[in-house]
This record gives sequence, structure tokens and C-alpha cells, in this order.
Amino acid sequence: TPETAERTAVPGVATGLAVTGAGGEVLFVEASLADPETGSTGVSLTGQLGEVMKESAQIALSYLRSHGAELELPVSDLKDRGVHVHVPAGAVPKDGPSAGVTMVTALGSLLSGRPVRAEVAMTGEVSLTGRVLPIGGVKQKLLAAQRAGASTVLLPKRNEPDLDDVPAEVREALEIHLVSDVREVLELALSPANAPRPVTLAAGA
Amino acid sequence: TPETAERTAVPGVATGLAVTGAGGEVLFVEASLADPETGSTGVSLTGQLGEVMKESAQIALSYLRSHGAELELPVSDLKDRGVHVHVPAGAVPKDGPSAGVTMVTALGSLLSGRPVRAEVAMTGEVSLTGRVLPIGGVKQKLLAAQRAGASTVLLPKRNEPDLDDVPAEVREALEIHLVSDVREVLELALSPANAPRPVTLAAGA
Amino acid sequence: TPETAERTAVPGVATGLAVTGAGGEVLFVEASLADPETGSTGVSLTGQLGEVMKESAQIALSYLRSHGAELELPVSDLKDRGVHVHVPAGAVPKDGPSAGVTMVTALGSLLSGRPVRAEVAMTGEVSLTGRVLPIGGVKQKLLAAQRAGASTVLLPKRNEPDLDDVPAEVREALEIHLVSDVREVLELALSPANAPRPVTLAAGA
Amino acid sequence: TPETAERTAVPGVATGLAVTGAGGEVLFVEASLADPETGSTGVSLTGQLGEVMKESAQIALSYLRSHGAELELPVSDLKDRGVHVHVPAGAVPKDGPSAGVTMVTALGSLLSGRPVRAEVAMTGEVSLTGRVLPIGGVKQKLLAAQRAGASTVLLPKRNEPDLDDVPAEVREALEIHLVSDVREVLELALSPANAPRPVTLAAGA
Amino acid sequence: TPETAERTAVPGVATGLAVTGAGGEVLFVEASLADPETGSTGVSLTGQLGEVMKESAQIALSYLRSHGAELELPVSDLKDRGVHVHVPAGAVPKDGPSAGVTMVTALGSLLSGRPVRAEVAMTGEVSLTGRVLPIGGVKQKLLAAQRAGASTVLLPKRNEPDLDDVPAEVREALEIHLVSDVREVLELALSPANAPRPVTLAAGA
Amino acid sequence: TPETAERTAVPGVATGLAVTGAGGEVLFVEASLADPETGSTGVSLTGQLGEVMKESAQIALSYLRSHGAELELPVSDLKDRGVHVHVPAGAVPKDGPSAGVTMVTALGSLLSGRPVRAEVAMTGEVSLTGRVLPIGGVKQKLLAAQRAGASTVLLPKRNEPDLDDVPAEVREALEIHLVSDVREVLELALSPANAPRPVTLAAGA
Ligand SMILES: [Ca+2]
Ligand SMILES: [Ca+2]
Ligand SMILES: [Ca+2]
Ligand SMILES: [Ca+2]
Ligand SMILES: [Ca+2]
Ligand SMILES: [Ca+2]
Ligand SMILES: [Ca+2]
Ligand SMILES: [Ca+2]
Ligand SMILES: [Ca+2]
Ligand SMILES: [Ca+2]
Ligand SMILES: [Ca+2]
Ligand SMILES: [Ca+2]
Repeated sequence: TPETAERTAVPGVATGLAVTGAGGEVLFVEASLADPETGSTGVSLTGQLGEVMKESAQIALSYLRSHGAELELPVSDLKDRGVHVHVPAGAVPKDGPSAGVTMVTALGSLLSGRPVRAEVAMTGEVSLTGRVLPIGGVKQKLLAAQRAGASTVLLPKRNEPDLDDVPAEVREALEIHLVSDVREVLELALSPANAPRPVTLAAGA
Repeated sequence: TPETAERTAVPGVATGLAVTGAGGEVLFVEASLADPETGSTGVSLTGQLGEVMKESAQIALSYLRSHGAELELPVSDLKDRGVHVHVPAGAVPKDGPSAGVTMVTALGSLLSGRPVRAEVAMTGEVSLTGRVLPIGGVKQKLLAAQRAGASTVLLPKRNEPDLDDVPAEVREALEIHLVSDVREVLELALSPANAPRPVTLAAGA
Repeated sequence: TPETAERTAVPGVATGLAVTGAGGEVLFVEASLADPETGSTGVSLTGQLGEVMKESAQIALSYLRSHGAELELPVSDLKDRGVHVHVPAGAVPKDGPSAGVTMVTALGSLLSGRPVRAEVAMTGEVSLTGRVLPIGGVKQKLLAAQRAGASTVLLPKRNEPDLDDVPAEVREALEIHLVSDVREVLELALSPANAPRPVTLAAGA
Repeated sequence: TPETAERTAVPGVATGLAVTGAGGEVLFVEASLADPETGSTGVSLTGQLGEVMKESAQIALSYLRSHGAELELPVSDLKDRGVHVHVPAGAVPKDGPSAGVTMVTALGSLLSGRPVRAEVAMTGEVSLTGRVLPIGGVKQKLLAAQRAGASTVLLPKRNEPDLDDVPAEVREALEIHLVSDVREVLELALSPANAPRPVTLAAGA
Repeated sequence: TPETAERTAVPGVATGLAVTGAGGEVLFVEASLADPETGSTGVSLTGQLGEVMKESAQIALSYLRSHGAELELPVSDLKDRGVHVHVPAGAVPKDGPSAGVTMVTALGSLLSGRPVRAEVAMTGEVSLTGRVLPIGGVKQKLLAAQRAGASTVLLPKRNEPDLDDVPAEVREALEIHLVSDVREVLELALSPANAPRPVTLAAGA
Repeated sequence: TPETAERTAVPGVATGLAVTGAGGEVLFVEASLADPETGSTGVSLTGQLGEVMKESAQIALSYLRSHGAELELPVSDLKDRGVHVHVPAGAVPKDGPSAGVTMVTALGSLLSGRPVRAEVAMTGEVSLTGRVLPIGGVKQKLLAAQRAGASTVLLPKRNEPDLDDVPAEVREALEIHLVSDVREVLELALSPANAPRPVTLAAGA
């Protein structure tokens, strides 16, 4: 959708899938790095995140701090630049581990300067070694992805059996990738490095 | 009004719109930077702000820390000068994300040394990438803006449908700008750089 | 009174006015700066202060950190010397924003080395830009000031209408100044720079 | 099992045994070290760990900080690299001291670059001097180990009497080692230094 | 008594007077400074102290940090040496502001290397400027002082009226000094600088 | 007993005596110092210690920080090496001041490299000046010491009257030392400096 395309037009924003009392929903994970000239360091987490979701953000950061160089990401940027991860809307409490892959993707996008593909939505817990662990609410999340106009969805491989419960027309309308390592997520979700999408200062050199 | 004009006469103060049990209301967001000679650093948030409103202030600061240089703001000032954001009155609890644009504007005014136009009031959640997200209470807020003598109001574009509920005479009395990026807010709200309004030390060199 | 004169004989102590369940009362705000040789830094707030009153102290400090140089105060003293603001009696809980002007005055007295005039009592919320905002309990506070032997009282200009409720004999016995900026408070409350009152090491060189 | 083999294929992951309301269970303790270029330091503990389990992680770290050099581990790595210990699944609360040996093993594996043997599961409290103290739930834990495909289990020597309650066929199917010092655990659990298993950057040079 | 003499034989210990449910009581305030070689800094407060009593300790320290040089105390010792104030017995909760003078005295004794006179007991709130403010329980405290073998008691001058309620034989058995400034307390309580009492390393060079 | 001998075989472990709902009990206080190469500093306290017991550990450390040099302990080791004090079992909550002497002894053993004698058990509150203050549960503690195979027990001198309640056969089986200063405890409890017991790296050079 235009909304999703606009939100993800800059590096550092990834589209996640959540389940609320009212069904599935799309949410955006936003990440930023402070200009080193501001002297800001440390990590800020906002969006009324619960304990488990804050831990997901810590895990995402630690994953990139230990595996980022392997992924050719400029991890030394994390040294002198404060990191902020925010999940709008600001007044809505959110919790759970299933935004793990979305957080790694938003941060990986920011560090690489490669925007996340507008058509990709994702869900999955991430472990500290980058494994993608299963989540709940597969059916509602796929319905929400379709409703929001996503054409590609990244799901944990260990959630494959849950696809049986998803209406065939939804499964067919979506390109569903089953992933077991967050590197696959990054490969599928990030635009190519030289794509012509606009790049903000926050993500560039 | 004279009150609003006096409050916003110095850089660092922006006029926001809030909704309380008693209807709409004008509030002032005040920002200050410590003199570097005081050795003060860090961020202080006062005014009995709730969790969500404190997060709004963190988001506003992170937005300026990552996008300030693009906006030609002297972001290195943030390095050696403690930031304080206060929302009078001091004893009244306040919460919610809708002062986001007002916080970015107060801080942008302070950094630029350009006072906020006395006739401008505003409301809107801000995301970490600077998008202006919709808020509630449009009707009460516009009535409050008019009552307080504001002639220009900045509203989230995604709140456009809510204008249908606003009395026509209010809509006509006010110049309403629908905005989707906080850069538009800064352009519309800040006085020109060379305006003859007084500039305090806190915002100057 | 002798009590007030003794308490305010040294720079760093200002006489405020408060309202308790038992009517109006005089309170003393005391401020000190650590000897730089002690290596002490940071801010201590004591006197069983509630959240709002602690925020008042933060606002008073931030006001002086950003506007102190304009006021020709040696703000660099704040860099290497820990600040302590205390409000006796130590076991009595206190709260509210109305000691704001008293806190700015105690700190301004300390930094300038100019004791506060023994005959002056004051009340008023302070904003981050130094505006004096209205407070409650005007009648009880003026009665308390008179009882304690103060001859001069500084009140927020926006509390002018409340003077109608104050007995004429009290209004006439007191010299009441209505103020709208904390700079007026400092001008009215501080003794001249070269007055012969004793100056302690904490405030001098 | 393939799951266990995949999880422990990289240094820094050890297989523990826990008891929940639903019986015994396998859990994985994951450890990572930040790339020194990220400037990250300190310790993060995630996985909804309770107080006692967080203390276990502190004990494991202190054990290695004081005894690591004796064990020929490169403890200076701990100086400039933030440590993170995580226990998936992220949303499941966990507590108790019995993951102590698993935490020492995960961290010892990470520091040595030697992956933990896929067939080894373990349980035991660790003291600050490295002694292995007894735990509860021996029977359920051995059943869980067998169910998960582990062939070797490390148990506290002081739990030897509890083996009487374990079905003979389980005891025979498993190679059970009774240990009293965590050094025995490391010797039995870590793969040889030159084994051909893949080594990630986080653990290597 | 021998107990009091032994407790106060080293610099850094002063005898205070408290009131509990069971009447008056003697308590000892102990202060220590870390050896600079330990690298320890900061302030520790122990003895199950309540909020108000912890604030008393902060006030005592700030008083000495700002007025210590006037009193010819080596305040630079506070820079590189962690301060610890403890009030045995460790398991008994204690609160209230009336140990203020005792805390200043224990710290003043420690810094000066002059032990507190064994025969002196004291009570009084201290303000940040060193004024001695009135306290409660005068009668019970004097009885306790006598019972514990103290011959000299230091009381706030503003408690003079409370002496009417004290039995004449108690008043006559004790040398009671009414004090209004903590400097008087230090003068009366500390042994002469060259007294032959033993001096520990913590207080000496 | 073999258990006690094994636990105290390394410097840094001392045997204490506690009282629980189920009678007297032996507990071990373990202390460790991080290898300076790990960059670890600060103090960790684990074992589900309550507030009073955590304060005992702070007091023990402060005692050694101010008096350690007098005792010829290498206190500068505390500067660059994080200290950890742990009291197994990890899941059992513990509280009270009576482990004070045991904590000083464990830390003194660690710093001196002298193991604690296996046959010595102890109990007593410690003050900041090293005085040994009385504790409760003398009878149960002595019974527990005997049961655990200790032949020597160190008790506060001020608990002497409580020995009347201890069965004569227990009193005779044990060598009981009544102590009033923690230096006596260290002299009685630590093995001679050149004893042939093994010394770990944590305590050696
Ligand atoms: Ca919350
Ligand atoms: Ca590829
Ligand atoms: Ca509050
Ligand atoms: Ca720049
Ligand atoms: Ca323009
Ligand atoms: Ca309180
Ligand atoms: Ca003037
Ligand atoms: Ca929790
Ligand atoms: Ca071997
Ligand atoms: Ca407590
Ligand atoms: Ca607890
Ligand atoms: Ca001897």
C-alpha cells in the first residue's frame, strides 16, 4: 500500500505482523542512529514495549553486534552513535517475542543503508545465534499482511504446519518464505545495495 | 493572545493542543540547553509527564539527533549541553503521544534560534522517521486553539476526515495545515532566521 | 523575625511561603555547593520532597544553567561542585510547584554570594524560561508572611485577582510585588552585591 | 536430535535440562560476545529470567572471570566485548539455580571457540568456586534428555541417590556422568579444540 | 560506660540519642573512609536507615563538603576515598532527622583524626547551613544518656523549653549544652587534636 | 566433615552458622575477585540475600577497604578486580546481620591467599570499626556446628551469657572462642600464610 511504501521508503523501517484482540495487524519497527556529532550513545526503546519485546530488541542488537561484521555491516557505527528503536503507535502497549526478525531487519537496513522492500512483511522470534523460532497467530497475521497490501511474507520454518489453517486463497495470493536463520530474512527483505531509493543521512556515511 | 505571544517570544517554546476532561486546551512545550560552562549533560523531562509523553520527548530528540544536520541545525550543541524539556503547569499530570510535533518544534526552535510564530498551534504524534501520525480530539483542540487566539493550526494529514465534525465557523476562522512530515511543521512554525524577535543566550552562540 | 534573619544571613537561603492542612507557613529553601576539592558533583535534593517539588528544583537549576551567564552569575561553578537543595524540616513531606521562585532565588543567592533580604518572602511556580506562573493559597500565604515578620512579599502577577480576598490590613502591612519574570524576583530579593553581610566560603571564591 | 545438533552447532550454546509444570524439558543457553568495534560492554540477560536464574548467570561469569585463565580461556576478551546470555523461548518465564553448569558451559564454549557436543545435556547449580551443587527433578530431567535425543547427561554427584528413582531403561540408555566440579563439566561437554565444526566470528579471533 | 568508651575509642564514631517504642536509647554512628588504594569512591549508607535518616547523612556530607575547609578539615580526602556511614545494630530499622548532629560529628571526627569524647552524647537535626533544629523526645533521650553513662549531652537550643519536663536529678547529673550551630557541636564533642587516644589508619595519613 | 573441608580448601570460602525455621545450619560464604584482565570492577552479591545481609557484605568490604592495609592485606587488588560474594544455595533466601564475621573472613582469606581452617565455624555481626556484635540463636548454631563436624567455633564475646543454655556436652566438644574484634576472628580462622593447602589463581599473584 502507499502507507507501507511511504513508511519503508527510508532505511531503518521494517514491516512486522502482530496479533491483537482485534485480529492481525501490521506494525512498523523504526530504528535510528544519532549523528556522532551529538555525542549521543546508548540504546532507547520506545512505543510502550513490554518486557519481552524490549528483550527482543536487546537480542536483535546483540545479534548484530556479534554477527554484523560477517554480514558486512559497518558495526563500528554502533560505537559512537546512540541507537533508538521505536514501534508506533506511541500510545499502544505492545509485547511478545515475535517482532524479533523485524527488529533485526530494521537495524540491518539502517546499518546497510538498504531500505526494506515495501512489499515484504515478516514475523518470527529470533534467538541470540540468529535462529528464527516459531510464533503464534499465523492465520491472522497472513490475513493482515494481505489486507495491508504485502505480497511477500517471511515466516519461521517451524510454523510450516500452521499454514494448513490458512485459507488457500490467502496462501496463493502471498509469496510465503519459510526461514530458519535471520540471514535469510535479511537477504529476502533488504533492497539491493545500489537500488535508487532515497537514502537518509542517518543511514549513509 | 498576549499570553501566547509572551510565552513564545523566546526560541524554545512551542504551542501545543491537548484534550483534558474539561475539553481542549493550549499547552506550552519549553526546551532549554544548559550553558556548556556548567558541565551539565543528559536529558531532563519535567511537568509530571506520563510514560508515553516521556517517550515522545525521547523520539523528538532522537529525530533531531539523526536528522538535525539535514535540517541545518547545529546538532553538535547537543553534545556538551544538557537538554531540558518542560511542560507547565508543573503540578498537572499530562500524557499521550500527541505533543510529538510540539516537542520537535520547541527543540528545533531552540537549536535554530528561530522563535516559534506566536499565532501557530499544533498537534500530532511523531514517528522516529519524522512522519506525523494521527491523534484524537481534533474538534476540541481546534476550539481550544481558536479560544486561545491562534490563527494557524497544524494537524496530521491523516486526521483530515475529522475536520467534518468541526463547526464550519471554526474551520474558517483558522488557517489549517494538514502535514505528514515534521519538516513541514518546522517550516510552517518557525519564524524566519533573521526575524527581529529577541534571542536569548540559550539559543544563540 | 530573628529566626528569619538568622536563617537567611548566609547566601543560599531564601524564604518561601507554603500552605499545609494547618494554614499558611514559612519555609526556608537552602542551597549549597560542594568545595571543588571534594570531587563531589551532581545534584542532591532532600527534605522529603514530592515529585513535583523535585521537578521544581530541576527547573530552577536548568533555568540558571541556561540563563545564568546573562544574569552575570558564575555558572561555571556548577561544573565542578555538587549542588544540594534542602528544605527543612527534614521529616515533613512537602510537595507542589510553588517553591519554584524560592529555589531560583536560593541558588541565585548562592552563586552570586549575595544573601537574600531577610524581610522578603516569596511564592510562585517558575517555568523553564523564567516566567512566574500562578499558585494557590494566596490569602493563607500572606497571613503566614505577616505572622513570620516579613515586610515584603513577591507574588505572581497572574495571582493579582486573589488579592481581593486578602484582608485590607494584611495587604497594607505588606509591600506586595507582583512579578511575571524570575529576574524581577532576583532583583527584589537579593541584597546588593557589596552589602556588609557575612559571606561563607561556599558562596565566595 | 537435528534440533539439538543445529542449535549447538556454533560455540556459545549449551543444552540444559529444566522442570516445568508439564514435566522435564530441554532448554538452550545461548551466549554471545559483542564485536569490540561496536564499543559495547556490560552484561545483558534475557529470556524472562527470574532473580535466581539471573544470579546464576552472574555466578557463571564471575567463575570464569576469576578461574578462566587457569582454564586457558582468553578472559581478556571479556574486557572489551559486551556479554549477552539468552535463554529461549523469549516469552516463557524461567527461574531457579539449576542452569548454572549450562551457563558456565555456554560461556566457556564461546570463549574457547569449542562448540558443545550435540549429544550432551546437563543440569546443576554452580557455586562461585566451581563446585556443582545438587538440583531437583532428576527423574523428569533424564526423561526429557532421552526424549530430546541426548545420549550423555551430566548430573551433580550429590544427586547420585536420586538415580534410584529413574527407570532402569532410561539409566541404561543414557551415559550419565556424576560431576562435582564445573571443570569436569567443561571437559566432558566441549568438543576438542581442533574439531572440524564451524566456528563463527563471535567465538574466533 | 566501658561500652561507649570502647566504641568511641577510634575517630569516626559518635554517640547519638534516639527514641524507640521502648523509650530512649543510645546509638552509635560509625563512619569510615576507604583507603585510596582500593579505588573505592561514592557513599554507602547502612543500618536499615529510613528515607529521612538517609537524607540526614546526605545533609551531613554536603555540610562538610561546603564548610569543611573553613573548619580546617582535609576535605580533599573525600575525593578519592569512598565514604561509608553505618548505624548498628544492622537489623534494626531506624529513621528520623535527629541523628543529623551525630552524623556531622562522626564524619568530622573521622576527617580530623580526633576521636569523639567518650562522655558526650548528642541529638539534633542539622540543616544544610549547619543550623541545629529542634527534635522530639528530649526527656527519654536524657534518661537514656544518663543510663548509658554519658556525662555531657548536646541538645538543640530550640529544645530549651522541653527541659522543664526532665526530672531535676537528671538535669543536674548531666552537663547539658544548648547549641544552635553544628560548629558548637564539633567544638564540644571532639577530643583535642593532640590527645593521646589511638588513631587508626582510616583517619590518619 | 569432608564437605566442609572440600568447600574451604581454596582461599575465599568461610563457614558460617545460621538459624532457619528448621534449626541451626552451616552456610558457606564464597568470595571471588575477577582477573584484572577481564576489566570487571564493582561488587556483586548473590544467593538471594535480603537487605540486611547485603548491608553486611557492604560493611565487610568497607571494613577491609579502610583497615586492610593495617592487616597487611593487598587492598589495592580491590581497585582493578570486581568482587563477588555469594552464599549458596542459590535458591534459598537468606537474611540477617550475623554473617558479618564470615564475610570479613571469606574476603580476608581471599585477599591474603590463606584458606580458612576447615575446622572453624563462626557467627557474629560486624560493625564498621570491626567490633563483633551479639547475635541470636547461639544454642542452635552450636548444635549445627557440632553436627557439621566443626571443632572450633567463634562467637561474639557479648553472647557469653547465652552459653548457659547450651548443653554441657556440646560446649565441651567444641573449642569456643569469644571474640570482640574481627581481627581476632581473622587470626583464629585463617591458615598460616605458608601452609601447604592449594592456592588458586584468584587468590594468588
Ligand atoms: Ca508502561
Ligand atoms: Ca543470496
Ligand atoms: Ca508521577
Ligand atoms: Ca555533520
Ligand atoms: Ca520552504
Ligand atoms: Ca518518601
Ligand atoms: Ca534593576
Ligand atoms: Ca518479568
Ligand atoms: Ca581430561
Ligand atoms: Ca528496608
Ligand atoms: Ca528477592
Ligand atoms: Ca597473633
